[in-house]
Amino acid sequence: MSDAPRLSLTALPGIPLIAVGADLVAIAMDGLARAALRLIDGDVLIFAQKIVSKAEGRQVALSRVVPSPRAQALAHYAEKDPRFVEVVLRESREVLRIRPGLLVVEHRLGFVCANAGVDRSNVAPHDAAEEWVLLLPENPDASCERLRVSLHACSGARVGVIINDSHGRAWRNGTVGVAVGVAGLPAVQDMRGHADLFDYTLQVTQIGAADELAAAASLLMGQADEGRPIIHARGFPYALREAGLAELLRPREVDAFR
Amino acid sequence: MSDAPRLSLTALPGIPLIAVGADLVAIAMDGLARAALRLIDGDVLIFAQKIVSKAEGRQVALSRVVPSPRAQALAHYAEKDPRFVEVVLRESREVLRIRPGLLVVEHRLGFVCANAGVDRSNVAPHDAAEEWVLLLPENPDASCERLRVSLHACSGARVGVIINDSHGRAWRNGTVGVAVGVAGLPAVQDMRGHADLFDYTLQVTQIGAADELAAAASLLMGQADEGRPIIHARGFPYALREAGLAELLRPREVDAFR
Repeated sequence: MSDAPRLSLTALPGIPLIAVGADLVAIAMDGLARAALRLIDGDVLIFAQKIVSKAEGRQVALSRVVPSPRAQALAHYAEKDPRFVEVVLRESREVLRIRPGLLVVEHRLGFVCANAGVDRSNVAPHDAAEEWVLLLPENPDASCERLRVSLHACSGARVGVIINDSHGRAWRNGTVGVAVGVAGLPAVQDMRGHADLFDYTLQVTQIGAADELAAAASLLMGQADEGRPIIHARGFPYALREAGLAELLRPREVDAFR
Repeated sequence: MSDAPRLSLTALPGIPLIAVGADLVAIAMDGLARAALRLIDGDVLIFAQKIVSKAEGRQVALSRVVPSPRAQALAHYAEKDPRFVEVVLRESREVLRIRPGLLVVEHRLGFVCANAGVDRSNVAPHDAAEEWVLLLPENPDASCERLRVSLHACSGARVGVIINDSHGRAWRNGTVGVAVGVAGLPAVQDMRGHADLFDYTLQVTQIGAADELAAAASLLMGQADEGRPIIHARGFPYALREAGLAELLRPREVDAFR
């Protein structure tokens, strides 16, 4: 073995289907044991948004949703189910773009994404005759912090926690994993004050570190099933600290692309 | 050791400063040896754009650039050096947004980014009295393909190659690594036809796999120096195949955010 800098991501094996009220920390600890991993200071665990949402009971039955006139109008134009659009609007602050098949909003948590992160796939059929959708966690940063504190209590290790989701991008095809909740690691790593090799001030001063790790984890999670929703990362290169999603959110007044 | 799915990234140690004409494959092979790594089929190497550009001689001396009237006008508004803006315009198809301190363009290669990827930091001082900037490689896909073929010849392994760069995002703070050139691995992994655990058709059908791996590599490269510009990745979860950057580029006619 060499001492080359290394980042290792492991998909925890044997994660069961997640039901409302599931103890994600116990499930993660079991998965870590199965992977022969013991948490150490500086490790990061990345949880897929879907399992956190399910554990928190964020499923909504579409049959119980009554779409507003606005949802009906937008749904007609977006060619989506009006009840689904109603749920999206309840999770949103603002509709940014609407096209047939496309509904881009500012989520109530402040980030921009399609459908406010509301998902119709992979929602366990409580009732086969019912259509369910899954919302993001109520407060993903708080969910991360609860997980972080509990992981610390179980393991003694100071770790970071990310909840990730797959987002589309304005100008590029394909989704990439991004953080929708962060605790215990820098969401944005500020490089100001660092000079480059030639003492030239760096142009890039802020690194979206939590998003880069969320993307790496997303690559390993895949999308076709829920079998790999918890990723262990070792080798995150920045010092852990208190943080939250807000670091990653661009204030509306400096957003050039609304 | 368990058989849990794993993605391991290693920053190749001992990479020297890169000069024009440098043999990046020989340098990567040396770095792999130093890291005690032997390439195997399915591995991916990620090269920082800066070292590929330097090896290809993409430095431009600002003293030799004569800004056009348009560059002067845009530079005044963007509060940037008119010669720098001239170089950016020569690398661009279209200016999308300009604000004080911000110049977002469509690069001639088709992607949207700040300053057409032209970089003022970390350009080796050929001449201490001169200011240099560094352009992206002329054809990053072709550069990747040359590296891929040469790595195959040296190692016998069929590997993928990415050239990555750090891009800002429309709505999020912090840069993330993205692919600006791809060879030998899927840039976008199409999941259409895959059902989820409950046979519901997946909403997310295209994964920006090369961008996710570029982000992971970027996390390990850091930004404050050039010491870690080549990353080895093992465990990329999709089958390698011929590919190019075009998969990641959203056609202008379906771009809702210009």
